Amino acid sequence: MIDVRATDRRSILAVAAGLATFGAAMVVAPRGAEAKQAADLDRVDALIARMTIQEKAGQLNLLGDPFRFRPMNVNPLDGQGDPARVTRMIREGTVGNLFNGVGAEAGRRIQRIAVEESRLGIPLLFAADIIHGLKTVFPVPLAEAAAFDADLARRTARAAALEGAASGIHQTYAPMVDVARDQRWGRGVEGAGEDVLLNEILAVARVQGFQGERGLADRDALLATPKHFAAYSAGLAGMEYNSTDMSEATLRGTFLPPFQAAFEAGALSVMTAFNDLNGVPASGNPYLLTEILRDEWNFTGFVVSDYTAEQELIAHGFAVDGRDAARIALMAGMDMSMVSGLFLEHIPDLVEKGDVPMARVDQAVRRVLMTKAALGLFDDPYRGCDPERERLVVGSREHRDLAREAAVKSIVLLKNEGDLLPLKTEGQKIALIGPFADDVENVFGPWTIWGDDNSRVSLETGFRAAMTNPQDLSVARGSDVEEALAGGIDDAVQAALAADVVVLALGESSRMSGEAQSRTEIDIPAPQRALAEAVAATGKPIVVLLRNGRAMELSGAVKDAPAIVVTWFLGGEMGNGVADIVFGKASPSGRLPVSFPHRSGQQPYSYDHKVTGRPANNALATQEYVARYRETTNTALYPFGHGLTYGTVSYGDVTLSEPTLDWTGEVEVSVEVTNAGEREVVETVQLYIRDRVADLTQPGRRLRDFRKVELAAGETKTVAFTLRREQLEYIGADARPTVQPGVFDIWLTSSAQAGQSALLTLGPRTA
Amino acid sequence: MIDVRATDRRSILAVAAGLATFGAAMVVAPRGAEAKQAADLDRVDALIARMTIQEKAGQLNLLGDPFRFRPMNVNPLDGQGDPARVTRMIREGTVGNLFNGVGAEAGRRIQRIAVEESRLGIPLLFAADIIHGLKTVFPVPLAEAAAFDADLARRTARAAALEGAASGIHQTYAPMVDVARDQRWGRGVEGAGEDVLLNEILAVARVQGFQGERGLADRDALLATPKHFAAYSAGLAGMEYNSTDMSEATLRGTFLPPFQAAFEAGALSVMTAFNDLNGVPASGNPYLLTEILRDEWNFTGFVVSDYTAEQELIAHGFAVDGRDAARIALMAGMDMSMVSGLFLEHIPDLVEKGDVPMARVDQAVRRVLMTKAALGLFDDPYRGCDPERERLVVGSREHRDLAREAAVKSIVLLKNEGDLLPLKTEGQKIALIGPFADDVENVFGPWTIWGDDNSRVSLETGFRAAMTNPQDLSVARGSDVEEALAGGIDDAVQAALAADVVVLALGESSRMSGEAQSRTEIDIPAPQRALAEAVAATGKPIVVLLRNGRAMELSGAVKDAPAIVVTWFLGGEMGNGVADIVFGKASPSGRLPVSFPHRSGQQPYSYDHKVTGRPANNALATQEYVARYRETTNTALYPFGHGLTYGTVSYGDVTLSEPTLDWTGEVEVSVEVTNAGEREVVETVQLYIRDRVADLTQPGRRLRDFRKVELAAGETKTVAFTLRREQLEYIGADARPTVQPGVFDIWLTSSAQAGQSALLTLGPRTA
Repeated sequence: MIDVRATDRRSILAVAAGLATFGAAMVVAPRGAEAKQAADLDRVDALIARMTIQEKAGQLNLLGDPFRFRPMNVNPLDGQGDPARVTRMIREGTVGNLFNGVGAEAGRRIQRIAVEESRLGIPLLFAADIIHGLKTVFPVPLAEAAAFDADLARRTARAAALEGAASGIHQTYAPMVDVARDQRWGRGVEGAGEDVLLNEILAVARVQGFQGERGLADRDALLATPKHFAAYSAGLAGMEYNSTDMSEATLRGTFLPPFQAAFEAGALSVMTAFNDLNGVPASGNPYLLTEILRDEWNFTGFVVSDYTAEQELIAHGFAVDGRDAARIALMAGMDMSMVSGLFLEHIPDLVEKGDVPMARVDQAVRRVLMTKAALGLFDDPYRGCDPERERLVVGSREHRDLAREAAVKSIVLLKNEGDLLPLKTEGQKIALIGPFADDVENVFGPWTIWGDDNSRVSLETGFRAAMTNPQDLSVARGSDVEEALAGGIDDAVQAALAADVVVLALGESSRMSGEAQSRTEIDIPAPQRALAEAVAATGKPIVVLLRNGRAMELSGAVKDAPAIVVTWFLGGEMGNGVADIVFGKASPSGRLPVSFPHRSGQQPYSYDHKVTGRPANNALATQEYVARYRETTNTALYPFGHGLTYGTVSYGDVTLSEPTLDWTGEVEVSVEVTNAGEREVVETVQLYIRDRVADLTQPGRRLRDFRKVELAAGETKTVAFTLRREQLEYIGADARPTVQPGVFDIWLTSSAQAGQSALLTLGPRTA
Repeated sequence: MIDVRATDRRSILAVAAGLATFGAAMVVAPRGAEAKQAADLDRVDALIARMTIQEKAGQLNLLGDPFRFRPMNVNPLDGQGDPARVTRMIREGTVGNLFNGVGAEAGRRIQRIAVEESRLGIPLLFAADIIHGLKTVFPVPLAEAAAFDADLARRTARAAALEGAASGIHQTYAPMVDVARDQRWGRGVEGAGEDVLLNEILAVARVQGFQGERGLADRDALLATPKHFAAYSAGLAGMEYNSTDMSEATLRGTFLPPFQAAFEAGALSVMTAFNDLNGVPASGNPYLLTEILRDEWNFTGFVVSDYTAEQELIAHGFAVDGRDAARIALMAGMDMSMVSGLFLEHIPDLVEKGDVPMARVDQAVRRVLMTKAALGLFDDPYRGCDPERERLVVGSREHRDLAREAAVKSIVLLKNEGDLLPLKTEGQKIALIGPFADDVENVFGPWTIWGDDNSRVSLETGFRAAMTNPQDLSVARGSDVEEALAGGIDDAVQAALAADVVVLALGESSRMSGEAQSRTEIDIPAPQRALAEAVAATGKPIVVLLRNGRAMELSGAVKDAPAIVVTWFLGGEMGNGVADIVFGKASPSGRLPVSFPHRSGQQPYSYDHKVTGRPANNALATQEYVARYRETTNTALYPFGHGLTYGTVSYGDVTLSEPTLDWTGEVEVSVEVTNAGEREVVETVQLYIRDRVADLTQPGRRLRDFRKVELAAGETKTVAFTLRREQLEYIGADARPTVQPGVFDIWLTSSAQAGQSALLTLGPRTA
């Protein structure tokens, strides 16, 4: 029997993260931390006392690394750094931080300029966008979220940190912990999906993975930077960079918890968001950057802007000019300016004229320098930056194996009629059709800069390696991703006709999700849908392998295919990972971290929507005057948490150890889970609650815990969770956690739309 | 020269409504009103002193009229009233209000039961959903909003009031003043579109029209009931009844102003909304129903629930049971319960047990009875209910003429390449094609109960009446609204081939918008798009007549047609009104009250969206990292305010009388508008502002005034507006109107996306 004694918010996260106990101090501060911190503070304050205002502004200035930068087809401004100019600035002390340069040898050389040729010798901080691996590319974060596996997320983050640190990097701009409720928004691919708890758990795991267990000064630690603070994912109509508007309860109940969890796990930097929130740009927002972050949460690290975000206060209509923007951002609580140069340019004058107190500048500098100290840079400015280790660690065999494991665990089986999957490794002619059949351009997915192109395994390569007779595989592209391919459909139909089974690899290219890749409709591009219809008309059984960076609308032959597998962007080992599942080397175990809607036009959509006064998903579903659209009910086609295995898993009734939960007590809730199939599987048991009556309307379901359970063929296990009052709490009208006595539904089940609940009563308030 | 000296909020509304001065007292209270009100209060309080708790609850109880009810295919619960039971209740005094029964003679009979057979003889209040006319059906409210014409809205409301009052009705559940920002939401058809100011102006006009100028006691006055309080239109993802969540500034800046305007115009009742707002259902929301409505706005009328909305507090998860729901709704500020019967059932016990103070019940009863008194029902319970007058007024010739005038003024010409329109009344063979060509089922549009079916003029009928040789018109349906029609496309193509010009009547049926008719995509149904493609392939010139209850996505042959006309649902005179425009008897003058997006997936969308930190509609539009989607920029295909005439109107530069507006001063802004065409036209000059820098981010444009201007062929007029500081204000973070000195763009132009701005500086704050 598996027993998760997760009892309060901290320990939920701790247990999910695989720790026996939990606390920020444990993660980031080794023994003797307090004494070291005091010594660091003395050293830093002595430095600050010696610094000119220009040197102070320099420590708050972050520029693209012009020395080691590899053009990344992301932002044309990135490439504008002039090595000679930046070298001069390092010597002058007017830039203290560089980003997106990678490479140990050059890193040491650049650091030496700062340490040996600047007046104060303050080491540079090297940051980088290490999102899902460096040279070894792991699944995109959204895919990895589908593994519902904190340990896996921690391990891939650790591997990325090893590669980054050895390459001369100290900080990564990850994890993204923006809860994504609108699948049109392209950047959901960089996060953990629509659920708050899953985002919290993976935020913790990823921070722990990046920063490691031995303290930030460890040579393998990367400073984690949760982003984007805050509510960036809530842009109106799912449009990138759009305005956000919400109640305090929604801000604190949905968008802030993963940040708080990340800071509790020890993250010592945070990146601001581009969006305005209720009329105040996040990058100039004192409520977010000071009241919540500092006064409430006691965050001690530094706040870095996202790319030119402080400059964009002007475009927002919130600042008059660059000087005003710098003043507003600084006074709101931003400590470090990315790319714009506004802090460097204006801080001296702002301080001189009295528009920004020197104390505020010193505070920001202290935060940056204390973080550099925590990273050990004052003790060893070349810390971790090691060409030899770089050769050993970066792209290692071990990391590639982990990438394959992560790929396998991230795959979600949506549908498998007639046990079409797994395919046989021999004796079956397979037509692999679609724009992703032999493609390597779209296995990494968005937001990789340093991935090893030679490491990319296509589906075709993975399939051939898995098949006894690779010649039983035929391949036809059939269509490009967004355009038809001349003769493509004919070739595909011929291939299908000659095969026993068709595997259709369809979906989005890497460039269709990620930053600035919001889509108005989340469907499969029309030429691919035409391909699917033509192939389906052959009557051959079809397995759809969906490549995607978001939840998608499935329709027509794609929706109707007997087997559908969500394969996301799985990184370098994509072809091998998919083959492991398709040919049954592993049973699928992933679960959807985002709901696949019936229709594109249901966005924003999340399983934990409120029920409304006229819920459609009850006996009223056949009525007209209920909360639904003309075209569909307010449900998902494949909901959050859904995912099949190659077993046959069934759930018994939910059992409560007591019908009533005392105010300060606990109740054990359990369920028998049986695998009647013939294969061992991993089942993800999900604990959902609903508060029947609350003083703010509550979601129809809310995930409060989950557990992955191994079930051998024929095995039954009792899976038990401990529930306490704290897990029933929600953010009330006063912005604090609250709950009232009353009745709750409790589900232990396989998805957000499955299962029958048991009723639990929360007893009267006691002292 | 037209000079609109609109200087503050009240007078803006007054001027727009065509009044020289403005004040709630003037509209609803004739001379001697105070004395009468004091006498009424004495009478009412004397009554209350005599009432049993059951009788009090009865005055707060509103049921469907089982005597005069005509099934309206709207809500199955409506028909459940049992005449014998309700008769008994009237006698007992346990129901004080009935709705949706119409007819003077029966009305008098029912009223007589209340007055003569109940213990206290309190007259019944008769209410009805008179939305856009009674027997005479006017354009749907959204269509009429396109006229940008407060006078027209007031006149059609007046006509509807005449018909309603003569039919034994005292109150209408109109106007709907919900600002509609998401075109998926079906009920936008019942309101005035996406803009706040237009909603305010039409709210005032419609309240004035319903209630009349001679006081509520006038026999022709209908008590107006602005709805749905509040934020009903902001349901997440445009889904009917869905939850709403927003900042205080958005609530007060976007959704509340039309309500406040309606109350200032004298509306003495208000209907609650179904949605929850930031976690608190509107129908149980003390902040909305008491703090804002009573404490801030001093509203003195009564609050009525929408259909079972108080009962739905249970489904919302906000009340435990019916008794709890009644308690919460009452204590929040709801005065009258619609349909559920919960107030009647539970008030006696709630008061007895001390859960609701008697004083609160008395307060609600007093509000209801004072409104009955204001309506004159205590003086003449049969007031207005006059069978003879009913025969004269209802469906009169005058009202039909007004319906035609309103239809003509509501039509919007989106596009007219090569002056394809107007068509000739002779010498041109016309093929009228589409599901709405000969249709009468879809001319009224949604939300009519008592319209005269025989009054419905189809397009075919209107066209034939307008043509010299009606035989030059051929008609083919081509397709049903949502399903293909066997052989339809072939017939249509034949008709097109035989004609000189094709008129394609496409769009939505009446049942595709309105309550509970949210759509996931706002496109034209696929079978009709297929019809359009086939007809376009003939190469014949095409005029699209769009029938619609919302903004729609136009694509393919529909989008590419040389002429596109938005014809909405225009009421009984639809065919004649459209013919008047199509054949040039009138020049189009309507303007879009809702933006037609490029893509369905842009919703929610309104022209007055904020600009973001990375605006796409400037020089950055060719860049990737801007606020846009992969498929489209953040603009509309046809924006709010857009509409062509048969003239050729051009605008000169915007001129300011002074470059700086003093804090307490005024500035005249003017523009020369020229009609270089050969026809007289009516041009709608729109005044937009943008606050360049504000302490809350502001929209890229905001409509602050408009004026319809007649321009003869070749005529130039200078159109001038007076601008004061109050018009530049917005709702600040403290929920109050605010503005700071600085620079503003001022446009005088023809749509929300047209024109060049002049810069105005608001000078320093002075006392």
